[in-house]
Amino acid sequence: MSQQLDSSKIIAAMQSVLPKNELLIPLHEPVFGGNEWAYVKDCLDTGWVSSKGRYVEWFENQMTAFTGAKYAVAVVNGTAALHISLIVSGVAANDEVLLPTLTFVATANAVRYCGAVPHFIDSEEQTLGLDTAKLEDYLGRVARLEADDCINKYTGRRIKALIAMHTFGHPVDLDPLLELCKRYKLELVEDAAEALGSFYKSRHVGNFGRMSAISFNGNKIMTTGGGGVILTNEAPLAQMAKHLTTTAKLPHPWEYNHDYVGYNYRMPNLNAAVGCAQLEQLPGFLQAKRALADRYKQSFSQINGVTFLSEPGYAQSNYWLNALVLDKPDRAVRDLLLKITNDIGFMTRPCWTLLHRLPIYHDCPAMDLSMAEKLEDRIMNLPSSANLYVKEHD
Amino acid sequence: MSQQLDSSKIIAAMQSVLPKNELLIPLHEPVFGGNEWAYVKDCLDTGWVSSKGRYVEWFENQMTAFTGAKYAVAVVNGTAALHISLIVSGVAANDEVLLPTLTFVATANAVRYCGAVPHFIDSEEQTLGLDTAKLEDYLGRVARLEADDCINKYTGRRIKALIAMHTFGHPVDLDPLLELCKRYKLELVEDAAEALGSFYKSRHVGNFGRMSAISFNGNKIMTTGGGGVILTNEAPLAQMAKHLTTTAKLPHPWEYNHDYVGYNYRMPNLNAAVGCAQLEQLPGFLQAKRALADRYKQSFSQINGVTFLSEPGYAQSNYWLNALVLDKPDRAVRDLLLKITNDIGFMTRPCWTLLHRLPIYHDCPAMDLSMAEKLEDRIMNLPSSANLYVKEHD
Ligand SMILES: Cc1ncc(COP(=O)(O)O)c(C=O)c1O
Ligand SMILES: Cc1ncc(COP(=O)(O)O)c(C=O)c1O
Repeated sequence: MSQQLDSSKIIAAMQSVLPKNELLIPLHEPVFGGNEWAYVKDCLDTGWVSSKGRYVEWFENQMTAFTGAKYAVAVVNGTAALHISLIVSGVAANDEVLLPTLTFVATANAVRYCGAVPHFIDSEEQTLGLDTAKLEDYLGRVARLEADDCINKYTGRRIKALIAMHTFGHPVDLDPLLELCKRYKLELVEDAAEALGSFYKSRHVGNFGRMSAISFNGNKIMTTGGGGVILTNEAPLAQMAKHLTTTAKLPHPWEYNHDYVGYNYRMPNLNAAVGCAQLEQLPGFLQAKRALADRYKQSFSQINGVTFLSEPGYAQSNYWLNALVLDKPDRAVRDLLLKITNDIGFMTRPCWTLLHRLPIYHDCPAMDLSMAEKLEDRIMNLPSSANLYVKEHD
Repeated sequence: MSQQLDSSKIIAAMQSVLPKNELLIPLHEPVFGGNEWAYVKDCLDTGWVSSKGRYVEWFENQMTAFTGAKYAVAVVNGTAALHISLIVSGVAANDEVLLPTLTFVATANAVRYCGAVPHFIDSEEQTLGLDTAKLEDYLGRVARLEADDCINKYTGRRIKALIAMHTFGHPVDLDPLLELCKRYKLELVEDAAEALGSFYKSRHVGNFGRMSAISFNGNKIMTTGGGGVILTNEAPLAQMAKHLTTTAKLPHPWEYNHDYVGYNYRMPNLNAAVGCAQLEQLPGFLQAKRALADRYKQSFSQINGVTFLSEPGYAQSNYWLNALVLDKPDRAVRDLLLKITNDIGFMTRPCWTLLHRLPIYHDCPAMDLSMAEKLEDRIMNLPSSANLYVKEHD
């Protein structure tokens, strides 16, 4: 292999960490070891599986308790949470929204659902999240403030919001970013889909954007089958989010009046019941995942040419998906590593295809994306389920 | 009361049908009496609650078996099913879509999600569904065919599709409607949200539109917590629907490429598990609901001024929500009936506020809607759950 990278050492390091005698070790599997059954059975027994029932409210309350956000609105998935977060932040048709090109496609899709235009920005190496310093320089050149709006000088469109995505659970450095957003009158939305249990300077992520989105898809740190939550610290925004996600129906015992084009994005009670049980186990999941990450880190520390992605100094990460980063971008090496690991049953994957490369987003405005383009050829995610941490290895 | 309508007789008729000694009889409640628990437990035990697992596929297969449609795509809810049905039917931004003003708001919202414009049409008395004869006359005056497009002469916009909604489960007369759609090059989408188990001339509804949507919301004849299904008989349309509802990801063991702006609309496996169990009980639910409807019909048959809404001659209805129709429109009488029934714990409700009255849809194009406007003051839905049919009453 090029760059002196010895793939057999990487395999050996993974073998030393991961459970033996498994035919296939998935990238990420949920763990159901708590009250899931009891709560779901209660839903079925009471007949409250859908829009009635106490689990949604309970889940939302537990969510605010865990994250410290004042308000939580449970929804069908993280994509819906992002969509509504953008609407409530004031994103309208033909606005531009800044977001990293290195993210899951849902981040950009949510922008499109608003009729707005994704505007892609570059990432930095330490967290794989957006590069605030580079963005600052870029905005200095392309953006102009007009009254309370940030205008893209080249397209003439308003740049209304910025989405910060906490990649694999590693928080973006939010303080300088908030500074920048303030200066340019940008609404900050956190795509914390992957970051439940991650803290920025001791405060849970999702508390920094005006609106934030978390996902409970089956591959996330905890799951509700499908699900998501919107976080905010502002009561009117929370009320609007709740209203828009429940068809914007005005309260009345029998009349059906709706004052906005609303959505059916409410999380069903059945899924919230699973969520309540999962949330109870979250501290344990987080512990197991940190322990697994520690072990990966040790195992890879002696191998030349790769670095295990660790939480930045200002943060505590949930280590949702562990990642190995090649020192030098090399698509061939990355693909070879993906192939040999998958071939022996260790499920690994690269990061997403950069969004500006997809034909559907090819024509969107973008800054120089050279770091993301290099990172694309350097990242490999490793099996990361909470149940992979086995004490006996210690 | 006006029109010689004796409310005490209506209450007495309801009392003779409904179970005694219940504090509150809801409009519609789900019944879980089958394998729900076993299937959900299986999901939790295998860890397959989300996008992996066999229940979604099983549910889709059972759905095609039950409805006779060739393809079924399970989604998060009926609204999502409608949205995707419209996209796959070719509805694009700035198109117009014909739909009844007498329907739930989701029908129009789905049109707006496409960036298209609802164009409201009138209903007829027998089924409360759209009035094909009146529509034919209207289109003769406002529509013009241009190559393969139907153009609204007054707005200049293309009228791309028509949504037929089967109100409370009573099928619209589809043959003349299909004829009309063909003549005017309109894609027919069936909003069969309420009509699972309803047949038009022995064929299940949802087989007549190119695309159709069914809902499994908690208030429907069967439920998945939240859920819906898209039906179609055309393989390429089914494939596109599946693709768009699963983020339009191109198949690959690890790469993430997406060739459309897709959605996260897939039904989670957990919800599909409940759906499989519910579908097994559907024949029983249908029987119980027909029996309940029969009994309502008999009880009301002697009362002047009201008619119990029965299935049209060409159809077999699921009697999802039973409805009493006042012979003469009278908002005061309707509201008084709603009040006294709800006060004694019989949950009733009027039909939806007509959509063209909502400020959000007030400016949309519309034909004369005088019949719907009359019907709005005539309709009262009655408690209709499958578990309300009690044999001992017979
Ligand atoms: C970064 C990011 N954004 C958004 C989403 C969307 O969440 P969901 O799959 O729950 O719709 C995900 C997860 O899938 C994600 O990883
Ligand atoms: C006529 C009609 N269309 C669409 C829907 C939307 O279905 P869902 O609530 O599952 O999104 C419903 C049910 O709520 C409905 O009654």
